[in-house]
Amino acid sequence: MINSKPYVIGIDMGGTNTVFGIVDARGVVLASDSIKTRKHSKFEDYIDELYTETMRLVRSVDAEDKIYGIGVGAPNANYFTGMIEDGVNLPWPTPIPFAQMLSEKFGIPVAITNDANAAAIGEMTYGAARGLKDFIMITLGTGVGSGIVINGQVVYGHDGFAGELGHIIVKRNNGRLCGCGRTGCLETYCSATGVARTAREYLEITDTPSRLREIPIEDITSKDVYDAAMAGDKLAKDVFDYTGKILGEALADFTVFSAPQAFVIFGGLAKAGDLILKPVREAMEKNMLSIWKGKVQVLLSELKEADAAVLGASALGWEARKATQTPPAVVSPTPLKA
Amino acid sequence: MINSKPYVIGIDMGGTNTVFGIVDARGVVLASDSIKTRKHSKFEDYIDELYTETMRLVRSVDAEDKIYGIGVGAPNANYFTGMIEDGVNLPWPTPIPFAQMLSEKFGIPVAITNDANAAAIGEMTYGAARGLKDFIMITLGTGVGSGIVINGQVVYGHDGFAGELGHIIVKRNNGRLCGCGRTGCLETYCSATGVARTAREYLEITDTPSRLREIPIEDITSKDVYDAAMAGDKLAKDVFDYTGKILGEALADFTVFSAPQAFVIFGGLAKAGDLILKPVREAMEKNMLSIWKGKVQVLLSELKEADAAVLGASALGWEARKATQTPPAVVSPTPLKA
Repeated sequence: MINSKPYVIGIDMGGTNTVFGIVDARGVVLASDSIKTRKHSKFEDYIDELYTETMRLVRSVDAEDKIYGIGVGAPNANYFTGMIEDGVNLPWPTPIPFAQMLSEKFGIPVAITNDANAAAIGEMTYGAARGLKDFIMITLGTGVGSGIVINGQVVYGHDGFAGELGHIIVKRNNGRLCGCGRTGCLETYCSATGVARTAREYLEITDTPSRLREIPIEDITSKDVYDAAMAGDKLAKDVFDYTGKILGEALADFTVFSAPQAFVIFGGLAKAGDLILKPVREAMEKNMLSIWKGKVQVLLSELKEADAAVLGASALGWEARKATQTPPAVVSPTPLKA
Repeated sequence: MINSKPYVIGIDMGGTNTVFGIVDARGVVLASDSIKTRKHSKFEDYIDELYTETMRLVRSVDAEDKIYGIGVGAPNANYFTGMIEDGVNLPWPTPIPFAQMLSEKFGIPVAITNDANAAAIGEMTYGAARGLKDFIMITLGTGVGSGIVINGQVVYGHDGFAGELGHIIVKRNNGRLCGCGRTGCLETYCSATGVARTAREYLEITDTPSRLREIPIEDITSKDVYDAAMAGDKLAKDVFDYTGKILGEALADFTVFSAPQAFVIFGGLAKAGDLILKPVREAMEKNMLSIWKGKVQVLLSELKEADAAVLGASALGWEARKATQTPPAVVSPTPLKA
C-alpha cells in the first residue's frame, strides 16, 4: 500500500509565485513547475489553475495513482485549522479554507503550514538538520520567518501560529515601522528589505563613498548591497555587519528559550554566506549566556535553492496521510481525480 | 503495585532553605519540613542531614514503603544528566551528581530539574495550568526563572537547560549588570532585587517625595516597595508600573515564540497582585502582535505559597519512576532504606 503511493506533492505558495512539484520518499524532485500566485482575482480560479497544472505534472511522470498526500507551505497557513488566516498580503479575502479546498479538488489528504515551518520540516527530513531534534529554522527573505523544532516536533503553539520570530522586538525605542503595525521587529532589520533599508539609512546619514550611490536610492535592493559588498564596498560590508549583529544578538536570545543545537539559515539573504554568517556568529557568541557559549551552531540550509520550497512543503505531505485523525487541517482521502 | 506506593517526596533546594515534603497523588502535602541549605561545607553532610530529616518525616506519616519516587527542584539542575551544573550560587563545588547521590542514599528513583520547571510541572499537575497544554511559568523571585510547556511537555532543549527567560536581553544598551556577567537581562529589572534596584534608581534620580526615603537606600527591599505602594506611595507605584511594563513587553515577545494560552506568574513578586499584574497585562496587550491580541492570559499561580515549591518538585517524583529508561537522571530503584 505504501509502495503503491510512493510520491507526495509539495506546493509552496509565495507572494509572487506558487511552486509545485512531485517528490519521492528520498527527497528527489521528479518534476516541478510554477504559476503566478496573483494572476486570478478569484481564489477558486487560482485553485483551478493550480490543479490543472499540477495534474499535468503528475501525468508527465506517470504518477496518477501514486500520490500519498499534498503538503503546502503558505503565508499565515494554520496547521491545525487548514486555513490561510487573516493579515496576509494576498489578493483574496481571508480566511481561506485552503486545505479543504485543495483536498476536495485533488481528492487526497492535504496538510498545510506556514512557509517557514515547511522549510524546517524539509530541512529536518532532507537537509542540514537531519538527525537534529532541537533546532530553529530562520528564513531570511522579504520578511523573516522561523520554524521551531523542539524534541523533533514543530512548535505550533496553542493556536497553530507559534514561531513568528521575525516579530521579536529588537529595538524597543525608535525602531523601524514593521508591516505588522508595530515598530522595531527583527524583520525590519534582518530581511532582504531590511538590508536595503539599512543601506539607504547609511547612504543618507553618512558621506562614506560607495558604489551604491550610483543607484537611485529607492531602487536599491539587498542584491545590490550584496554585489557591492562582494566587490569590496566598505559601506555595503558595514550593512551586512550591522544586519548580522542584530540577527546574532537575537539568536542568543532565542537560545535561552529552547536551547537548540543549531540555527539553520535559509532564504535569499542566506546566499550572502560568510558576509552575513560571520557577524551573526560573532554577535551570537558575544551575547550568549555562558552555559551555551560555543555550543550552538549556525548552519546554512542544505536544501537546493530551486527545490527547497517544494521539498519543505512536500515533507509535510507524508504527514497529511498520518494526520487524518485530526480533521480540520486534513480532509479524508477519496480517489485521486486524475 | 501503584497503590502500594501512593506517595512521592518533593524536595525544593533554594539558596537559603531546602524544603521537603511527602505528597500524595492528589497534591495533598501530608507533611513538610526544611533544613538550611548552607549549613554544611561538605555536600555529603548536606545529603546526610536531608536524608535523616526526610526519613523522620516519612516515618511520621507511616510511609516507609510507600514512596514512589523523589522529585527535586534545584538551581541549575539538569533533567537529562541529574547534575547540578556549574555557575550557581551554592557553597559546594559543581557539578554535583545530585540525582545519583540522592537515589543511592534513599534507594528510590530520583528526577531533578530546575526550580522554575518544577513549578511549571506543579502548576500543570495541581494548579492554575491544569488542562493547559501550552503555557509559560514565570517565577519572580530573587531572580526571574521560567518553565516552558509546549504541547503538554516541559521544554528542556538539547542539553536540559532550556527556558532561561530571565536572561532574555530587554535593554540592549546601557542595561543593568546581571549576575550572569552580561547586561540588560530581564531579571535585573523584573525580579524582587530588580524592583529594589529600580526603587533606588528612582530615589536617586528624582526628587519625588516617598516614604521609601526613610529607609537607608541600600536596605530597601521589594517588600518595602510593595508596602509603600499599598500605602499609596506614588514613587513605589511607579516602580511597579515600570517593572510590569518591562515584563509585559517581554511576555509579548515570548508569545511569538511558542504561542502559549497563558503565562502563570509565581514567586515573591506575584504576591503584589494587581500592582504588578495590571501593568504587565497592559504592556503585553499593547505590544502584542495582532493575531494574539486579547488571546493570551496572565494568571497568578494557584499553588499554595507554603506548599508550592514542594508540590512542584514532588510532581516530578511521579516521572522519576516512569523515566527509568533514561539512565543519567534517574538511578534504578533499590529497596527504600527506611
